[in-house]
Amino acid sequence: MTTIAYLGPEHTNTHVAARKRFGTRAKYVHAPTVDDVFHLVERQNADYGVVPIENSLEGAVTHTLDRFIDFKHSPVTIYGEVERLIHHCLIVHQGAKPKLVKRVYSHPQALAQCGAWLDKNLPRAERIETNSTAEAVSEIFKTTLLGHLDLTIPVKEISAAEKAAIARGELAKGKKLRAIPIPDNRENKTRFLILGLGQTKRGRRNKTSMLFSLKDRSGALYDALTPFKRAGINLTKIESRPSKKKAWEYYFFIDLEGHQSEPRVKRALKALEKSTLLLKVLGSYPITR
Amino acid sequence: MTTIAYLGPEHTNTHVAARKRFGTRAKYVHAPTVDDVFHLVERQNADYGVVPIENSLEGAVTHTLDRFIDFKHSPVTIYGEVERLIHHCLIVHQGAKPKLVKRVYSHPQALAQCGAWLDKNLPRAERIETNSTAEAVSEIFKTTLLGHLDLTIPVKEISAAEKAAIARGELAKGKKLRAIPIPDNRENKTRFLILGLGQTKRGRRNKTSMLFSLKDRSGALYDALTPFKRAGINLTKIESRPSKKKAWEYYFFIDLEGHQSEPRVKRALKALEKSTLLLKVLGSYPITR
Repeated sequence: MTTIAYLGPEHTNTHVAARKRFGTRAKYVHAPTVDDVFHLVERQNADYGVVPIENSLEGAVTHTLDRFIDFKHSPVTIYGEVERLIHHCLIVHQGAKPKLVKRVYSHPQALAQCGAWLDKNLPRAERIETNSTAEAVSEIFKTTLLGHLDLTIPVKEISAAEKAAIARGELAKGKKLRAIPIPDNRENKTRFLILGLGQTKRGRRNKTSMLFSLKDRSGALYDALTPFKRAGINLTKIESRPSKKKAWEYYFFIDLEGHQSEPRVKRALKALEKSTLLLKVLGSYPITR
Repeated sequence: MTTIAYLGPEHTNTHVAARKRFGTRAKYVHAPTVDDVFHLVERQNADYGVVPIENSLEGAVTHTLDRFIDFKHSPVTIYGEVERLIHHCLIVHQGAKPKLVKRVYSHPQALAQCGAWLDKNLPRAERIETNSTAEAVSEIFKTTLLGHLDLTIPVKEISAAEKAAIARGELAKGKKLRAIPIPDNRENKTRFLILGLGQTKRGRRNKTSMLFSLKDRSGALYDALTPFKRAGINLTKIESRPSKKKAWEYYFFIDLEGHQSEPRVKRALKALEKSTLLLKVLGSYPITR
């Protein structure tokens, strides 16, 4: 049986993305951090790993990018990608009046994405960050004290009806909860990476992800991109991240259309190597969109 | 008197950066969010604003980048920059034994930067995110309950000696606190932007920051960079951020060496305009490094 490690806990968007890709017959293992998902794949405790890499509103998941930088010699490759449309709901207790909610729990990215809606609809509710949207939902039923304990003021409890979570609507099912959709006229999508140790089969349309650092000289980035322009290879994505060794030195992540086994891609990568200090091809995989 | 709005509260790194630039004779006003600092400058309630833009370990401050995207017609320009070396300390109560600390409070960026040190030295301490490093220090003296209130377990208080904050050492002064330096062999610097409504005087060496979006066609980014390469203008920085309108569409932030009043820079910007949907020069200002 194929074992899939994903950024947990259960029932988060990453879990749903993993199930979308690998179906019901795989065995799923959740890991508490992005780093743990990589480790499980590296130690072959899992065949594949699933981690978020980018959200269309909030941008790159820097934990995932930095894991590639921090462990440059890791054998982990990008085996594929999955995209998911994200619909946020305000999850409240069945008996709750949403207007009276005093605390809203969610993952920082979800709180940021719903910031405008919360400003308008629950301007006075305190926003509390949790490690996952699933954890946010479980907070509703926990006993919670409001504010700090001051010896002169009696302890005040905040009821389940005064708490809410922002999460997928499915997380309300089977509990005494209801889900109120949070409308958003912007496209909210998250892209997830499938991590593995081998190479994927070449698809009809492919993408190659790479990581590199440049020599410190004028025009270095432009020169690095020249081989792709000459070969007519389209670059679909560029991200920069700090090197963490020297201030204002960067690593670049670039995605291109094509497979590293194609001669024109091979040639361009060979030419790129000349202007880089480090070049690592993270993987070639089919484009799913 | 010159009024300076900065991302507060008082005594944070942004406050120190503002004082480094404007000295003791200016009037300082702290604002709770990056957005508020921009607003104060836009409404001319402050002459200048100071916000963080980038940390050498954690990367771009996306709130600041996104404020430029969300208010493209804002008259705010970048008037200058300030850089600060960041030294983190573990701030504990005078009588505390650091090994017994159960909770460490700090801003998410500081917690991330000290993550490896905390893993090694305080592996079991709970890490609690605060809005600022100054707020983290004030948490030490607040009365706090440990964990959730369960009706069957008596309320347990966590003492000041069991709490710590990660912040600048200066924040321990004048209180019953001591600061233990957290060593870091990496370069930890933060760069801050000075926001204003006018143009700065041209310095000996200048930098120009711009924001643009590209037409959706193959090689668009390469073509956008070509005028700078041809004019021998060095690009020092590139950042991409989601457009938030359509998934996987981006805005680019680029810094170049030179002043927008120089003819070669003017010409390159004019050529760039042809391959962009939107181009906004955010400001030209002296390089401080």
